[in-house]
Amino acid sequence: MKLGILGAGQLARMLALAGYPLGLRFTAFDPAKEACASDVCPVVCAAYEDEAALKAFAESVDCVTFEFENVALESARYLEQFVPVFPSSRALEATQDRLDEKNMFRGLGVETPGFEPINTKEDILKAAESLGLPLVVKTRRFGYDGKGQFVLRSLDQAEQLWAELGSVPLIAEAFVPFDREVSIVAVRSQQGDMRFYPLTENEHRNGILHKSVPLVDDPMTAQAQQYVATLMESLDYVGTLALELFQVGDRLLANEFAPRVHNSGHWTIEGAETSQFENHVRAVAGIPLGDTRAVEFSTMINLIGDFPDRGVIQNVDGAHFHDYGKSPRAGRKIGHITITANSTELLSERVSAVVDVMKV
Amino acid sequence: MKLGILGAGQLARMLALAGYPLGLRFTAFDPAKEACASDVCPVVCAAYEDEAALKAFAESVDCVTFEFENVALESARYLEQFVPVFPSSRALEATQDRLDEKNMFRGLGVETPGFEPINTKEDILKAAESLGLPLVVKTRRFGYDGKGQFVLRSLDQAEQLWAELGSVPLIAEAFVPFDREVSIVAVRSQQGDMRFYPLTENEHRNGILHKSVPLVDDPMTAQAQQYVATLMESLDYVGTLALELFQVGDRLLANEFAPRVHNSGHWTIEGAETSQFENHVRAVAGIPLGDTRAVEFSTMINLIGDFPDRGVIQNVDGAHFHDYGKSPRAGRKIGHITITANSTELLSERVSAVVDVMKV
Repeated sequence: MKLGILGAGQLARMLALAGYPLGLRFTAFDPAKEACASDVCPVVCAAYEDEAALKAFAESVDCVTFEFENVALESARYLEQFVPVFPSSRALEATQDRLDEKNMFRGLGVETPGFEPINTKEDILKAAESLGLPLVVKTRRFGYDGKGQFVLRSLDQAEQLWAELGSVPLIAEAFVPFDREVSIVAVRSQQGDMRFYPLTENEHRNGILHKSVPLVDDPMTAQAQQYVATLMESLDYVGTLALELFQVGDRLLANEFAPRVHNSGHWTIEGAETSQFENHVRAVAGIPLGDTRAVEFSTMINLIGDFPDRGVIQNVDGAHFHDYGKSPRAGRKIGHITITANSTELLSERVSAVVDVMKV
Repeated sequence: MKLGILGAGQLARMLALAGYPLGLRFTAFDPAKEACASDVCPVVCAAYEDEAALKAFAESVDCVTFEFENVALESARYLEQFVPVFPSSRALEATQDRLDEKNMFRGLGVETPGFEPINTKEDILKAAESLGLPLVVKTRRFGYDGKGQFVLRSLDQAEQLWAELGSVPLIAEAFVPFDREVSIVAVRSQQGDMRFYPLTENEHRNGILHKSVPLVDDPMTAQAQQYVATLMESLDYVGTLALELFQVGDRLLANEFAPRVHNSGHWTIEGAETSQFENHVRAVAGIPLGDTRAVEFSTMINLIGDFPDRGVIQNVDGAHFHDYGKSPRAGRKIGHITITANSTELLSERVSAVVDVMKV
């Protein structure tokens, strides 16, 4: 069976690497000439709007999935005419607009921070009144890794905010004084079977994920699982999905979900019995899902912008280096390191050894 | 860094899959048109004797390794003029001839079963007298998976043996009434660091490996490690190596070694902190070696000839299916399954569930 992947970045690369042992083959599709999945599978280089190229791509594979959700909706809808697409364009659509997404969460009983649509400059002031300051204002579409966001700390910043973002529809979200950020990565098969990875605690820096730590038996696990199960069932979702949450006291508030494998699940490559990547391709290819149990204690640290001294890091037992084959560039995710150990004490020592080298 | 691999079968395929996360790239070289590594890396299709193709291959990569030892010696020697080759042709040469290999073992203090060279039909009778019956007679070169072997059970089979194998140099080996067959997979870096995987107990069927079970803290570990360390040091070996041994009482007798990743180490992909494949490419690429510790209990079962019902097997938690992308054919290794669990009891249940489906 051959799977097509829209996008040929590091997620496509890790999907293909996880799928080859299952006997699957892959072709990716990406407008970028030097997409990093091209080391590991053929990549069709064409624009996402190129219908002839999309049709030929669809006809060359047995089903299609995608590695990102921001620009592929129209492409996915077009491809669905010719070939099964998992997850479906419906799931993809649900993440295209932050306002629709939050309304959907509420409709499903998934709690969220307070939010208001912003369509005029005056809406900023109204939202600040109802939600308080600071206020997080985001573009409703096409945001990722902290891009397209503005934190309004005082009302006299409203002009600046409007100048920067006011040309597109916006959403205002209450600034949540969260105790921690967590995510739950889960997977659902074509038959509706679901598996859940342990809750993962995430630390962001400059709006980009820095570190993820899976926490087996975390007390918030049941609530997170209930949220993500409701979400996946309502979307008849097929594949791996990540739901990002804020914890405030003993409540979890949904921030957003990603209809794909997720950076906060990269630790599963070494840390879980079956990785999020393998389980995604299993779901898409109709193979029974694999166990999501953590096999070791682990921590994932992103490599952003530049590589640290890899020789020193690779000398640390349990440090697993992932180089995506991308050129270093400021702010770019170019790799990650997962550190594993069979005790939390040993994990802590090893993480310190790695972090010392990284100077992060 | 780009690694070249001589041979593009399943071992090359698994080497490349293990090396991509490290940021390495791969090109394989194989005379076969549809070699299975071609799913995961470019393959140069040319004869091993094609010096122009070998030279161009050498010049396109930073170093070369190989996935099998039977026909590549001249190619490896030729390539060494242009590019580093790990392990060296010297290590490769030491495995080309079973008689030289056994003499080398003896010279290093590594015990072996009794053996005698067979150059004439009369030598068969002499060997039977000194080593006893049954007598295992093998071609000195080019044997694998039980091919090129004859078990002489009575002297009146000597004519038949000579007719079948007598055209090439032979070695007679004493038939060893072993308690079990074990192997030790180990790896050595360019700086001489060594790491050892747990001793693995192996079961063969029809001369082909059927099942491997790693045994942490096996009482024979120290002796096996001492043997393989002596061997690797004497050859200034770089990369992963497997030493196959017979256990008789409390003694280990060396059967043969493979200067490469080995089927009895396939369990390390899921079962060890760092797989034999990753450690091989680490050694070859000059990256510090990874931890060889077993992270779970595991068992590997080969898929020979045809595939079992993979859906049923993949429904067993902890069953990891490896499909090499090869066409099924009687006697052909087309994949393997590694079953993992966090207790021996659970492992035993899961192995039974898999074996029931396989009817092996």
